[in-house]
Amino acid sequence: MKTPTFNDIEAAYERIRPFAHRTPVMTCQAINKMTGANLFFKCENFQKVGAFKFRGAANAVFSLSPEEAAKGVCTHSSGNHAAALALAARMRGIPAYIVMPANAPEIKKKAVAGYGAVITFCEPTLAARESTLQRVAAETGATEIHPYNNFNVICGQGTAAKELIEDSGPFDVVMAPVGGGGLLSGTAIATKALLPEARVIAAEPAGADDAFRSFYSQTLMPSVNPKTIADGLLTSLGALNFQIIQEKVDGIVTVSEEKIVEAMRLIWERMKIIIEPSSAVPLAALLKRKVDVDGKRVGIILSGGNLDLGKLPFK
Amino acid sequence: MKTPTFNDIEAAYERIRPFAHRTPVMTCQAINKMTGANLFFKCENFQKVGAFKFRGAANAVFSLSPEEAAKGVCTHSSGNHAAALALAARMRGIPAYIVMPANAPEIKKKAVAGYGAVITFCEPTLAARESTLQRVAAETGATEIHPYNNFNVICGQGTAAKELIEDSGPFDVVMAPVGGGGLLSGTAIATKALLPEARVIAAEPAGADDAFRSFYSQTLMPSVNPKTIADGLLTSLGALNFQIIQEKVDGIVTVSEEKIVEAMRLIWERMKIIIEPSSAVPLAALLKRKVDVDGKRVGIILSGGNLDLGKLPFK
Repeated sequence: MKTPTFNDIEAAYERIRPFAHRTPVMTCQAINKMTGANLFFKCENFQKVGAFKFRGAANAVFSLSPEEAAKGVCTHSSGNHAAALALAARMRGIPAYIVMPANAPEIKKKAVAGYGAVITFCEPTLAARESTLQRVAAETGATEIHPYNNFNVICGQGTAAKELIEDSGPFDVVMAPVGGGGLLSGTAIATKALLPEARVIAAEPAGADDAFRSFYSQTLMPSVNPKTIADGLLTSLGALNFQIIQEKVDGIVTVSEEKIVEAMRLIWERMKIIIEPSSAVPLAALLKRKVDVDGKRVGIILSGGNLDLGKLPFK
Repeated sequence: MKTPTFNDIEAAYERIRPFAHRTPVMTCQAINKMTGANLFFKCENFQKVGAFKFRGAANAVFSLSPEEAAKGVCTHSSGNHAAALALAARMRGIPAYIVMPANAPEIKKKAVAGYGAVITFCEPTLAARESTLQRVAAETGATEIHPYNNFNVICGQGTAAKELIEDSGPFDVVMAPVGGGGLLSGTAIATKALLPEARVIAAEPAGADDAFRSFYSQTLMPSVNPKTIADGLLTSLGALNFQIIQEKVDGIVTVSEEKIVEAMRLIWERMKIIIEPSSAVPLAALLKRKVDVDGKRVGIILSGGNLDLGKLPFK
């Protein structure tokens, strides 16, 4: 498979610049003290739709030819990618067709509908989602935009690390959480181009550790019944993502659910910002000393801030 | 009583500049749509100790003569002012003596102790707090720094509005919550100096409406058994604060507990930042259309972000 280069990420950056926020980078002396490092947090929780996903979706939508664009885009997702794709499509003035499981949370259905997408509901199984998506694509001629196993999506996600490094680099280490691998693969390409000496380290919940197992066995091994509070990281690595990760990533570490909640609470309490559990996974690894960052400058991507405030894990 | 001028606020700004954060101003298109106005939120939840209180405490501490400073500062408080005064004193390298009720939350005791203050516990009554403070002041010679009814504290609090107007003004309306009146009186002085045409409007919980009653009756009327989730606003107006508010403030509106929680949730969900209930009171007033801001530019001070994540009001 053809993998993106940093030139592709730079082109994505120019393409989405009129639409995406250049999110701020935040620091916290208290958390620096606790980890013994200098941490720089890229706040994608402040991105449009509340997650980095908007970058990839916008790049995919604005990369389409006028003929392709006229027929719209489609995907199956119940999460941030669906909202991101719906908003990007609305910005280009084209239709978005989203396949969602009928049992998706009301708040997510509303968000996607609010961006003007056409929603098709299906049974809550992967098979039903995929067959429904095939049908929708065939009927409409819309281009399918996969949430992570997609060249243009990866390029869009890589723009977050590019901005982080430009605004606050250089770094000794750059960290991102890993689920499907869209954010991680884009981050790795951007980091290795701009900072060849920096290490790229991913963090993953132990309860959804397919990237960890795949990386160290050098064989793509999808998750079976993954379970984690970090619901953005339940998905298994894509093939294109895995290829890039094998080439560019230096290590993957896993963390417990308990540490994820602890790290999330720390960021809420000390930094006064709302992040979703997935965003807390890299800091959880640092609190557990799973990565040597002593005295080092570390860039960390906070992936998003969408979660149900009525169901928080704090006591 | 001598009231501060804008020159005093400018002097306070220069005095605390090396120590305080120049906090960011944030905007939110979704909330603008809901209120019909252009809102600019000054994020004092990102200030040192998580609240605007650090500005006033730092100005008071750094205004002391060397002789006064050597003997330290003292106050009675169980909230943000205690932490703010303790940190400001530590920055100047002088002692801070804090009188706290024995039943104050552990997390607050820890925070104040963590900044190196000497804590004296007392019975949880105002009489016990005041008599204990008198004893501590007599024994140590420390200067008492009242949390709001204090010239230098008011000047420090006024620096938030000065920054907000410089960074994002001009405004048609500037809003702040009102409790003891330190933030509101400083905000009013700064606003009327920089934007003589702007209206200054305060928002107050209906369950602790002493400022509202005092303002419209032109008589200082303290609260009796105030009750509100906005725990930073339980205190009654100070005399110096009331004098300034009568001169400079254009109106005070009250809001229900329900609307405070709704506004707080809206800021958490849409802006992805953590604010304490007191900070949500001005937006609650706008959601309820208590102030005419249609199509107007409105500066709002978000007072702080300290609260117990284990006891949130969201369902």
